[in-house]
Amino acid sequence: MVHQISPLAPARLPELPAISGVKLASAEAGIRYRGRHDVMLAVLDPKTAIAGVFTRSLTRSAPVEWCAAHIGGSARAIIVNAGNANAFTGRAGKASVSAVAKFLASALSCKTSEVFIASTGVIGEPLDPNLVTKVVPELIAGAAEDKWEAAARAIMTTDTFPKMVTARARYGGAMVTINGIAKGSGMIAPNLATMLAFFFTDARIPPVLLQTLLEDGARRTFNCTTVDGDTSTSDTLLFAATGTAGEAPRGLKRITDASFKDFAEAFSRAAHELAHLVVRDGEGAEKFITITVTGAASAREARQIGMSIANSPLVKTAIAGEDANWGRIVMAVGKSGARADRDRLKIWIGGVRVASRGMRDPAYREQDIVPHMKGRNIEIKVDAGVGRESARVWTSDLTHRYIDINGSYRS
Amino acid sequence: MVHQISPLAPARLPELPAISGVKLASAEAGIRYRGRHDVMLAVLDPKTAIAGVFTRSLTRSAPVEWCAAHIGGSARAIIVNAGNANAFTGRAGKASVSAVAKFLASALSCKTSEVFIASTGVIGEPLDPNLVTKVVPELIAGAAEDKWEAAARAIMTTDTFPKMVTARARYGGAMVTINGIAKGSGMIAPNLATMLAFFFTDARIPPVLLQTLLEDGARRTFNCTTVDGDTSTSDTLLFAATGTAGEAPRGLKRITDASFKDFAEAFSRAAHELAHLVVRDGEGAEKFITITVTGAASAREARQIGMSIANSPLVKTAIAGEDANWGRIVMAVGKSGARADRDRLKIWIGGVRVASRGMRDPAYREQDIVPHMKGRNIEIKVDAGVGRESARVWTSDLTHRYIDINGSYRS
Repeated sequence: MVHQISPLAPARLPELPAISGVKLASAEAGIRYRGRHDVMLAVLDPKTAIAGVFTRSLTRSAPVEWCAAHIGGSARAIIVNAGNANAFTGRAGKASVSAVAKFLASALSCKTSEVFIASTGVIGEPLDPNLVTKVVPELIAGAAEDKWEAAARAIMTTDTFPKMVTARARYGGAMVTINGIAKGSGMIAPNLATMLAFFFTDARIPPVLLQTLLEDGARRTFNCTTVDGDTSTSDTLLFAATGTAGEAPRGLKRITDASFKDFAEAFSRAAHELAHLVVRDGEGAEKFITITVTGAASAREARQIGMSIANSPLVKTAIAGEDANWGRIVMAVGKSGARADRDRLKIWIGGVRVASRGMRDPAYREQDIVPHMKGRNIEIKVDAGVGRESARVWTSDLTHRYIDINGSYRS
Repeated sequence: MVHQISPLAPARLPELPAISGVKLASAEAGIRYRGRHDVMLAVLDPKTAIAGVFTRSLTRSAPVEWCAAHIGGSARAIIVNAGNANAFTGRAGKASVSAVAKFLASALSCKTSEVFIASTGVIGEPLDPNLVTKVVPELIAGAAEDKWEAAARAIMTTDTFPKMVTARARYGGAMVTINGIAKGSGMIAPNLATMLAFFFTDARIPPVLLQTLLEDGARRTFNCTTVDGDTSTSDTLLFAATGTAGEAPRGLKRITDASFKDFAEAFSRAAHELAHLVVRDGEGAEKFITITVTGAASAREARQIGMSIANSPLVKTAIAGEDANWGRIVMAVGKSGARADRDRLKIWIGGVRVASRGMRDPAYREQDIVPHMKGRNIEIKVDAGVGRESARVWTSDLTHRYIDINGSYRS
């Protein structure tokens, strides 16, 4: 199946600057695809700090288990393949990960625990480690600081465009860079929606802080996005900090410290942007939907209400049909399990209040929001009427193309 | 939009026998539809016991709140309209329900608390009670024991066929009848999936037992079905027992008593059948899917795993595409939140074991299950590998027609 570029893709790809201490390469290993690169390697300077956040699935893949076991130390390499997720592959899967880590550690003269691995693609199929290791010499030889786009392309599955972001921040007396690449919800034939995202910076960040920053950022960005509510076996988010830009600010202890503010804000912007790019390439997506929930009893419940709306097939098909069907939003709030006061609930679409006090807003006329519904970016706001907490989540609509992409038989 | 009859519809409609103490009628009130009956009335003999189970939505409709407040006593009438759910209609909705109950109670010389009301259709629109009350005299005059099919048709929205079941049981020394009718997941333009189901029997059942039986039955049947995971504001399940067939067995105390066994079994069969008919008319359904979960740590977790599979868009689109994509079943087990042992998980499709011990079953060949995937009835079995509890759930596939039905703009 040929996938047209998502109508929600950005007009142009950003140019990612070099990050000192990060060299990238990609190659064709022929794991599943032909005629394209399907393995990416990032070679990292010694003493690079690494943080990671992984899928909460109970059936997580062998590479996820490997990475989760080694987070907290340092990293010398991140290697990623597309086409085979190495998930639900039993002992063979574990052995495959070990073999790749061993080979790469030997080639780079580092510890196996400094090699991080991610795989995306079909699940339940053994992944022959030799397919990966045989391109490692070529990858190491070709690794360079300017291969960001090639790297972002090599990790794609049914993604229709490569996902890249960059941000600058003042940190420890110097300007530092944050680059991020991701692959989104795609399936080959057939696969799981699988999200992989990798951030890199030249800033020197104490590992504990890097991990806290990443967890906090993931909670507010990637964990607030959904395409179809299906959680992958393979979701992986890594953040590598080479420290080549200089020293960390003196006395830095918490991610809320003033000396960390600019970096934390730059990362937050980059993480939001990358997470949104993943949603914008959601399978079959025609609309990018932002759902803001206010007036909830807790932040967790605000997110719960937002995700209930974002995962409702009835809400998502209505938006695909450009129908301002706010009754379905009421339904999704009601089924979320979070506290909400039906008779104080307020709903806005495109800034227009459509419902208040447990019923249609008397001033609301449907024609006022028709132009908004026809646009690419849909804004929904809900006030639950029970508290002061809020959350924001992002999703895409549910279209015929989603069914085409996921219902087609494997060739 | 014209809806073709579901390919999963039964070949013929059953003929429902009369139930002494139940008279039915239907009429055209013109609430939303034209040229068809859209109101149904069941007139019940005095002292009819009534039990009810309702949506757990926090944004439930005015009729649901009315019924829930009056369950536990007796019933003289059940009145149901299609086309307007009277949900999220504020005080006007409550007043509308009261007005209908008052009018009907006066006409039947009963208490308003003996009138039960259900509404299905568009939400957020006020329901003018006069539209309903103006046909009440005609309904009462025309009520008869043989109007089951007309009643089942009058409550349809986008249902493609009327849903009717009947069962017989030996109870208290006599043969008694159980009839049931339901409407399924449908939307007009646009609406919520809304499930209404009504059971009637001539058996004399103590109200507390009737309620327990209904709650227990709902848990194992209707609450184990899903079309799209979207919970309606209006789901209503009522069971009316006229008691005209004679006395309850002496000493009957619990639904597990031997004297209740035949009735309980007959109700269980009828409830399963009616719940399955609702799934078989799920929006756009082409396949009827039965998911059996064994080896779970608790019955609740077994159901949780089953529902996670049944609600996964990726599993449902794969089945629509006749693709034996068991990797997506692994994913759905992993994301369910219930305990499962990845390395002891077993999966069967159509009776063929496709996965065991955390990987693809070595003996599995995909061609063995291709004919099963092409059939109308798909059987999935999962053993979670952690305990002895089990559950069974039912769903339909996710097809282009679901998007057509739910994504079309209101005219």
